[in-house]
Amino acid sequence: MDALKQLKKELKTVVDIYGAVNLMHWDMETYMPKGSGSARASQIALLTSLAHERFIGDGIKGPLGELIDLDSGAIKNGIDSESKKLVKEIWKDFHRASALPKEFVKEMSSAASLGQQAWIEARKNNDWNQFAPHLENIINLKQREIKYIGTKETPYDTLLDAFEPEMTTADVNVLFNSMKSDLVTMVQKISKSGVDTHEHILYQHYDIDKQWAFTEQVLTDMGFDFNCGRQDKSTHPFTINFHPTDVRITTRVDENNFMYCLSSSIHEGGHALYEQGMDPHWYGTPFCEAISYGIHESQSRLWENLVGLSKPFWEYYFPKLQKIFPENLSLISVDEFYLAVNTIKPGLIRTEADEITYNLHIMLRFEIEQLIINEGLAVKELPALWNKKMEEYFDIIPETDTNGVLQDVHWSQGSFGYFPTYALGNLYNIIMYTKANEDLPNMENNIREGKFLPLRNWLKDNIHEVGRRQTAKEMIKSISGKNLSAKPFIDYFKNKYCEIYSL
Amino acid sequence: MDALKQLKKELKTVVDIYGAVNLMHWDMETYMPKGSGSARASQIALLTSLAHERFIGDGIKGPLGELIDLDSGAIKNGIDSESKKLVKEIWKDFHRASALPKEFVKEMSSAASLGQQAWIEARKNNDWNQFAPHLENIINLKQREIKYIGTKETPYDTLLDAFEPEMTTADVNVLFNSMKSDLVTMVQKISKSGVDTHEHILYQHYDIDKQWAFTEQVLTDMGFDFNCGRQDKSTHPFTINFHPTDVRITTRVDENNFMYCLSSSIHEGGHALYEQGMDPHWYGTPFCEAISYGIHESQSRLWENLVGLSKPFWEYYFPKLQKIFPENLSLISVDEFYLAVNTIKPGLIRTEADEITYNLHIMLRFEIEQLIINEGLAVKELPALWNKKMEEYFDIIPETDTNGVLQDVHWSQGSFGYFPTYALGNLYNIIMYTKANEDLPNMENNIREGKFLPLRNWLKDNIHEVGRRQTAKEMIKSISGKNLSAKPFIDYFKNKYCEIYSL
Repeated sequence: MDALKQLKKELKTVVDIYGAVNLMHWDMETYMPKGSGSARASQIALLTSLAHERFIGDGIKGPLGELIDLDSGAIKNGIDSESKKLVKEIWKDFHRASALPKEFVKEMSSAASLGQQAWIEARKNNDWNQFAPHLENIINLKQREIKYIGTKETPYDTLLDAFEPEMTTADVNVLFNSMKSDLVTMVQKISKSGVDTHEHILYQHYDIDKQWAFTEQVLTDMGFDFNCGRQDKSTHPFTINFHPTDVRITTRVDENNFMYCLSSSIHEGGHALYEQGMDPHWYGTPFCEAISYGIHESQSRLWENLVGLSKPFWEYYFPKLQKIFPENLSLISVDEFYLAVNTIKPGLIRTEADEITYNLHIMLRFEIEQLIINEGLAVKELPALWNKKMEEYFDIIPETDTNGVLQDVHWSQGSFGYFPTYALGNLYNIIMYTKANEDLPNMENNIREGKFLPLRNWLKDNIHEVGRRQTAKEMIKSISGKNLSAKPFIDYFKNKYCEIYSL
Repeated sequence: MDALKQLKKELKTVVDIYGAVNLMHWDMETYMPKGSGSARASQIALLTSLAHERFIGDGIKGPLGELIDLDSGAIKNGIDSESKKLVKEIWKDFHRASALPKEFVKEMSSAASLGQQAWIEARKNNDWNQFAPHLENIINLKQREIKYIGTKETPYDTLLDAFEPEMTTADVNVLFNSMKSDLVTMVQKISKSGVDTHEHILYQHYDIDKQWAFTEQVLTDMGFDFNCGRQDKSTHPFTINFHPTDVRITTRVDENNFMYCLSSSIHEGGHALYEQGMDPHWYGTPFCEAISYGIHESQSRLWENLVGLSKPFWEYYFPKLQKIFPENLSLISVDEFYLAVNTIKPGLIRTEADEITYNLHIMLRFEIEQLIINEGLAVKELPALWNKKMEEYFDIIPETDTNGVLQDVHWSQGSFGYFPTYALGNLYNIIMYTKANEDLPNMENNIREGKFLPLRNWLKDNIHEVGRRQTAKEMIKSISGKNLSAKPFIDYFKNKYCEIYSL
């Protein structure tokens, strides 16, 4: 067991270096002075490469090799079953990381930092050409990455596997295809229903400081621990963590769009609860890490949609909100407000999309990413293709690239294969929520009284503290007794929206 | 020359890691959630130790050994004179750092992080005992550090040398003794003069946001580049840098004490101009580093005192300040305001002291530090000794340890030997300012018109960009043609305050 102890100690070192890298990222997105972009990119690249170097270095290789066959992944004798699981997960990461040359990791990290800064400027200036050369470079690097790691079923599978281990492109295509027509049909039915949700209620002037204070209250009620985390502003909301005792989220505030800030805060708050809920005893190891990006997304979307867009949630918060914004809301009923926040309407921006059309935005990106990675689609074709697909899916064409192909940060960071995990999160979270509702007496009544902690604790016990002891597929199976399918999600949105829109 | 190239590359890596450490420090003092203190301390300790390990590792040792004899410091043949200087400075750092075992560096760094957090709490609770065990631990570590490095003339000299290279305890005692009686006499004369400076002008209510905006304007006028830096709030103001393009200062604001914030901002702004003024081409090497803490302090105090407390400065800013705070200042003349900001009065707090009594605060600390390090004075004796010396020097006894022995952050960070450099800064800066005034036509007239850039540029050319090409003693000699003495400073304060107080 000395080898395991040694391994854990060295892993903690690696994760501490990544913690510093994460802090540099957080700072870059929140407070860093602009003139320091290139120095920061180089520092991030250097430290990322140091962490990577250390992760695949002798300090890991030595003790890991005593516990598992480094080539085949066959566990050696004499370790208990919990440690077996741990060692296997460490080996998976080691095996993937070892495939990447040190210089490549540095190059990728630097390209991603510079790419992200270029994206911010390009988006601000609605200038695709400012970003395009960076994206070309990043895509070339991703193609090299695939070659280093090895092509799985398709090149895209190699990238997807980094975000959603053991999920294939084919799996995702099956899941998405099984719900696509129901989603499209639902959107059409709602559109034809003629129901006016009086969305304009949400687009009145809402004081920024009051909005901010309200989100902090909601986060506190959800169980977000401000003693071990904080909320700041950034262009693109995100969650980042340096340790279970330091988990930070960012959001954005629009004084003329109430849900813009709140839904981002709740979403990131859900991610943050996952990170704050992990067992710090295992810090540095896969048992203190998220299962997958899809499972992470299930936590954010469970809070954002299943809780934050639910009737019980608004029955609790709406009277409070009326007191904060009497000039906007005193003449509105909770039912009217609930209808407004559940407006289903095709729009340009993924992060502002409702919980139905959101999935169509993901499908669009998933299709484009497969074309880029598997078919070699040229970067210069992207804006036109984006607009064409927007027209197909939503019957709207973005008037600017800022609101079209430039809207997401992901590609600028080299994150291809990430998008599908967002929709997978929707499939996972309804399964978890349903089970929590079975396990917890009066869960929705509690929510109606602002008591979120039973749900938070259920998630902590059943998901957060699990770390990577299970895969996503195993977790879904152990929660529901069934294999993952889109059916529970389809049932959920059909039930909810048929009722709301009287279909 | 390949060895030198290799050496510079590896040094950049080391300095990048220290950049990450500095960011973790900055964050700890500004935005870090409180619950993360111990995780952060361990992460800082780890990265500091990695940087140290790398600095004394083969990546430096190899190429450095090709250029210089690692034991004797004798330069080998075949390198030009600029490179010689550079290599010699790198070797000095290497030689000192090599003396410290890796585990010791980690322990010291962790003790300092935890010590600082304990100090913050102890200061808040006026509870010396909360801090004392941390300080004992830190002092024991400093004694071990001295043993590792080797005792110079006295053990304290070993610590002083880290902050003010080539300056001895005996040198400092001579300098301080040569001005002590003049300082004490001046304070007594002023006290007997019966002049009322109407200090209360400064202690009216000054809106915090307006104060903040005013400091940002002053910093901008001084030449502080907000594109490559920022200002935030913290308990104890400081300057920190991650690269010449990212230099950050912190300050504190008191709505009932106008100069509390402004003088801190100008002070830290002076430090920041030094860091922003360095040549990024040499980033990672001693040519992009400050000569000494005393020279650093000369830059902050030059701006804080020689500029910020001068008549021309206030002739420019006072009319603007009157417009910002008409309710406080409309009936006051610039002469009255100038008198108020130049109030000389013994007080409890070093960082709030005037430019004369400040030096006495330093002498008190310098004496106590020598007792702790050279004579083994026990930690438990410190509060009583502090109060006894306060009575001797100032005829006042602090009513709380928070305003006494607990007021400074330095010991909590393990910084013994740092304090004397503050007073050395006062001796250096008047020599620099005098020379700038000789070299620049109309310098003080320019200041009277808010034009600070000629002075800033003079400092950049003659001090900032020099890096560590000169020692402090060499720089003073090359600027003034004379060896360092306290006489120019004594002449300065006698002239200034005899005029102000009509002595």
